[in-house]
Amino acid sequence: MVATPRRTDIVIPLFDHFEPLDAIGPYEILAYVPGATVRFVTAEPGLVQDVLGSLPVHVPTGYAEVEQCDVLLIPGGGSFKAMVDDADFLGWVRRTHAGTRFTTSVCTGSLVLGAAGLLDGLTATTHWDAAADLESYGAVYTPERVVRQGRVITSAGVSSGIDMAVRLAALLTDDVTAQAIQLYTEYDPQPPFDTGSVAKAPPEVLERARALSPPTSPSPRRSPAPPRSPG
Amino acid sequence: MVATPRRTDIVIPLFDHFEPLDAIGPYEILAYVPGATVRFVTAEPGLVQDVLGSLPVHVPTGYAEVEQCDVLLIPGGGSFKAMVDDADFLGWVRRTHAGTRFTTSVCTGSLVLGAAGLLDGLTATTHWDAAADLESYGAVYTPERVVRQGRVITSAGVSSGIDMAVRLAALLTDDVTAQAIQLYTEYDPQPPFDTGSVAKAPPEVLERARALSPPTSPSPRRSPAPPRSPG
Repeated sequence: MVATPRRTDIVIPLFDHFEPLDAIGPYEILAYVPGATVRFVTAEPGLVQDVLGSLPVHVPTGYAEVEQCDVLLIPGGGSFKAMVDDADFLGWVRRTHAGTRFTTSVCTGSLVLGAAGLLDGLTATTHWDAAADLESYGAVYTPERVVRQGRVITSAGVSSGIDMAVRLAALLTDDVTAQAIQLYTEYDPQPPFDTGSVAKAPPEVLERARALSPPTSPSPRRSPAPPRSPG
Repeated sequence: MVATPRRTDIVIPLFDHFEPLDAIGPYEILAYVPGATVRFVTAEPGLVQDVLGSLPVHVPTGYAEVEQCDVLLIPGGGSFKAMVDDADFLGWVRRTHAGTRFTTSVCTGSLVLGAAGLLDGLTATTHWDAAADLESYGAVYTPERVVRQGRVITSAGVSSGIDMAVRLAALLTDDVTAQAIQLYTEYDPQPPFDTGSVAKAPPEVLERARALSPPTSPSPRRSPAPPRSPG
């Protein structure tokens, strides 16, 4: 039998130019945690546009309305640029982090945790193309997929948030529940190629990947920002 | 060098109670196909609510406005029930399919292809908990993750759409481009458990998974429908 679930409040900030899978991969997993509520929040409630250009999401809640949560999850994408430049938002991230059970990020979301001062001296990960930027915030980059340092968990690029979320589901509940969510979402990955990391990808694939960019260009480069905007 | 990309029009119908990752996993991959445009369409343009309850998506285009596309991708979730009961929509699926390069589905989206009469006699897949329903439409269910039969491609539950989309990206372009998208999205999956398929999950995990349900209950069971609404 499943014990009566503890209520778990999970908050995911979405700003314009967010990378869809960064946010929706973990949302899909974490929404099935018994007792969990996932809330998207933003700066100005209303429609938030993704970086791929076709997924305007209605976000009814401003982040300033949220005073505490159990899990804070910062997705990446072009949105990280506005986030790291927004002192009010970074202050909110710091205050919220003080009361979370877990503070987490996907992809360039870790740069936001870094800009908020939460990764200083910690080992962390991010999208493979944003490693130097992560280290500019005092973190020690490691090319692992999911890195846990106490209650701070960072994950690598875009799709890594799914792996992070399954681990997080286990931390919030138990292994069997997390495994059941993995089965329900049939997360038995069988990618057709084995080129999903820089270590595995041939040079021509890396070159082609560096030439990709989101269909919707995020705002122009501002410091600190990587040359492009990996998810 | 990358050749000048062919324009590729990809259409994904979203109805209320769609399963987020069914749609957004493939969207994340396919939007990076050079020359591709991904459009979400729906029955009545406006906000479409997902089955997990926190992701209202603004969909500005009615499916009836679309007369043809290169790729049709039907996601699953509780939304399949309304889709299989909507004769107008099924007629549109059939007409659109006549002109596609690829007609595809994720999860219970294959039941919609079945209801439209497109899977009769074909081998196909779906969410593990919807196999009998798929066969009720004359398809031969196989517990594979991605099944291609000519220009019809079905994929298994929820997360399988990512694997399908990477394969589809290769079919639409070339292997190196698909591999580059896989690298850009850092799709190097490392799930913490190996319980993502019925064949691998212990009985207690299967039992726990069968007890899960989406936070937002879809409409009551209507025939033909599985006992619950696997994504």
